[in-house]
Amino acid sequence: MDTVVMKFGGTSVATPEKILEVAKRAIQEKEKGNRVVIVVSAMGKTTDALVALANEISAEPPKREMDMLLATGEQVTISLLAMAFKALGHEALSFTGWQAGIETESVPRNARIEQIHTERLERVLENGYFCVVAGFQGVDKVGNITTLGRGGSDTTAVALAAALKAAKCEIYTDVDGVYTSDPRYVTGARKLEQISYDEMLELANLGAGVLHPRAVEFAKNNNVPLSVRASYSDEPGTIIQEVITVEKNLIVRGVAFERGVARVTASYEKPFNSALAKLFMKLAEHHIDVDIIVQSISEDVPTSVSFSIKEDSLEETKRVLETYRDEIGFETVNYEVGLAKVSIVGSGMVSNPGVAARMFDILHLQDIPVKMVSTSEIKVSVVVPASDMEKSANALHDAYGLSY
Amino acid sequence: MDTVVMKFGGTSVATPEKILEVAKRAIQEKEKGNRVVIVVSAMGKTTDALVALANEISAEPPKREMDMLLATGEQVTISLLAMAFKALGHEALSFTGWQAGIETESVPRNARIEQIHTERLERVLENGYFCVVAGFQGVDKVGNITTLGRGGSDTTAVALAAALKAAKCEIYTDVDGVYTSDPRYVTGARKLEQISYDEMLELANLGAGVLHPRAVEFAKNNNVPLSVRASYSDEPGTIIQEVITVEKNLIVRGVAFERGVARVTASYEKPFNSALAKLFMKLAEHHIDVDIIVQSISEDVPTSVSFSIKEDSLEETKRVLETYRDEIGFETVNYEVGLAKVSIVGSGMVSNPGVAARMFDILHLQDIPVKMVSTSEIKVSVVVPASDMEKSANALHDAYGLSY
Repeated sequence: MDTVVMKFGGTSVATPEKILEVAKRAIQEKEKGNRVVIVVSAMGKTTDALVALANEISAEPPKREMDMLLATGEQVTISLLAMAFKALGHEALSFTGWQAGIETESVPRNARIEQIHTERLERVLENGYFCVVAGFQGVDKVGNITTLGRGGSDTTAVALAAALKAAKCEIYTDVDGVYTSDPRYVTGARKLEQISYDEMLELANLGAGVLHPRAVEFAKNNNVPLSVRASYSDEPGTIIQEVITVEKNLIVRGVAFERGVARVTASYEKPFNSALAKLFMKLAEHHIDVDIIVQSISEDVPTSVSFSIKEDSLEETKRVLETYRDEIGFETVNYEVGLAKVSIVGSGMVSNPGVAARMFDILHLQDIPVKMVSTSEIKVSVVVPASDMEKSANALHDAYGLSY
Repeated sequence: MDTVVMKFGGTSVATPEKILEVAKRAIQEKEKGNRVVIVVSAMGKTTDALVALANEISAEPPKREMDMLLATGEQVTISLLAMAFKALGHEALSFTGWQAGIETESVPRNARIEQIHTERLERVLENGYFCVVAGFQGVDKVGNITTLGRGGSDTTAVALAAALKAAKCEIYTDVDGVYTSDPRYVTGARKLEQISYDEMLELANLGAGVLHPRAVEFAKNNNVPLSVRASYSDEPGTIIQEVITVEKNLIVRGVAFERGVARVTASYEKPFNSALAKLFMKLAEHHIDVDIIVQSISEDVPTSVSFSIKEDSLEETKRVLETYRDEIGFETVNYEVGLAKVSIVGSGMVSNPGVAARMFDILHLQDIPVKMVSTSEIKVSVVVPASDMEKSANALHDAYGLSY
């Protein structure tokens, strides 16, 4: 008997009616002869409402207490979904993160899953029940409720699929698969039938939004067959797996982009060896995610390091830099907001020289200034003004032959 | 260093502003040199909203899942209150029922606390933190979230006070103490400075509403000094303790009443020994609280048993009786709704014969029909038409000299 993990996001469980629909969908899966685990997020805009409530008390609420607060969102959904199964004549039990045995590290708001104690779920599945598990949350070793950060419910689903040795993990969402680019902005964007873990990982990391990068990484490392599907249709969606049959011989498989990028540049009078380490260690200690890092050392200009962060961590970044100014040892610092990152992704790049050069050329033809660059084996990212984001994405999507 | 447990109900934590007020109040208590534990309920009408949400899914949701759902209410409050402490410059940690070590029996929606593992709270208090604990909830031995039933937060507070050997347990509420009767209905009602556990227990059992009877019983059994105070003022409230100095030499200390009473009468063709046991065992199995029981056996009338229940358990009672009709073995059954219970309470009654007789006389003079009677050492209760409830209460309050 195969185990299937199905994950439904906030929009798919936004109302009692939608919750009943989710139950029906899971019942179909069970009637095929599978054991079914359903992972759900908080209903609709619940999380936003809880954050707003917290902000009425404090501009900067303690993270442990935010986790305590936010974890209630999924707990509401799981109880309602279990009720829905019962109302439809099926047996189900709901489980919070700690009840499902999801043990995480002790990092509030951004904890990683360390291990999953599946005994209870296994037993309940064995008895023919649906298991309804709260996504996004776990418990640390001392019993504090933790949350997994953005997209955490995807991670919960994949981690459970790995731990339960599931035959597949299906991520149901409000789009019907993974696209070559975001169809809301890029006119020629189209759905991919298959994509590799690495390509998906880059797309996810680049803000493609459909799947959380941590979830994709987890799936890759544990070889969990993953699919992204629409909760509103029976279309097969996009399958994410190791070996793919390339649809067309495309070098670039997708164009991703995200707004809300800020650049920080710290200048030093003279370079000293430990400076970079100190800077980025401090940022890491405060859980500030740094994306692109560019450093220049030369003799005639002052030494500086630039890095990009999410705009919404700018305030905390400023505070950290100010607080540890002496320790980090920089001379001046400046910030730029209103930026966006645009990336091209594809495993074909590795063996194709000049992909980056061509990208700069395309952007140059559109008069788009490139502020920062970062490359990996299967992607190239550039930081551009947010006002040029859409134009950049469309130009690249067309130029690399992705459009219809 | 003394430990103080302070409990705040739903109205006292209905908004972020009120939550900040609760924190300030608790800070005052800590600044007197005490270790402070705060037990809170769900905010305002949260529980009602959650119940309504569940009912959109199912008319009769599984009880385990209702507990899962309802427990989120207090979890929201504790996180916000802990944030409030932090915002006011104090350290606090919030704890759900299971995190606070509150172990209950496995009876969803109406679990009793079996034991409290206080190690974690003790440690946190020792470190000078406020402990904010979710009322109304616990966890059973297998790790299911349970709730304690109506007034459960009072029970949580008293049980924690007992387990932590607290110097006092203060129940903050939207009234300023225990009254001789409900001032909304009885014009002469006034606040009592002190009352004994037993008297409070009877008043609580009789729907006086300020405190849950289970909480009073717990306080009595563990000799926890309890007080009921207003969350909106600094008035001392009413102290509940074993030995009291009687304010006046009153036989009756209070008049309590509640609406929503239904009478059920089951008739048997001939009496048989096991009938009563079977009937009430079945009702108990379905967690239907039976209040007054009156049985009459004589030779010329059919044998019958009448009992009173809360009107809102009438549907379930009907179903239980119907389902187990053969097993229970009654002949006919009839129901009467629209009733109320009015009671007089006072430890002085024990040594005063004729208290009940006088009560019937007072009611008779007001032309109020008495439908059922129940007596204990320190109270007499009568069931009357709900429409006569207020008149009965006022007449008794005046006649026993309780009014100003």
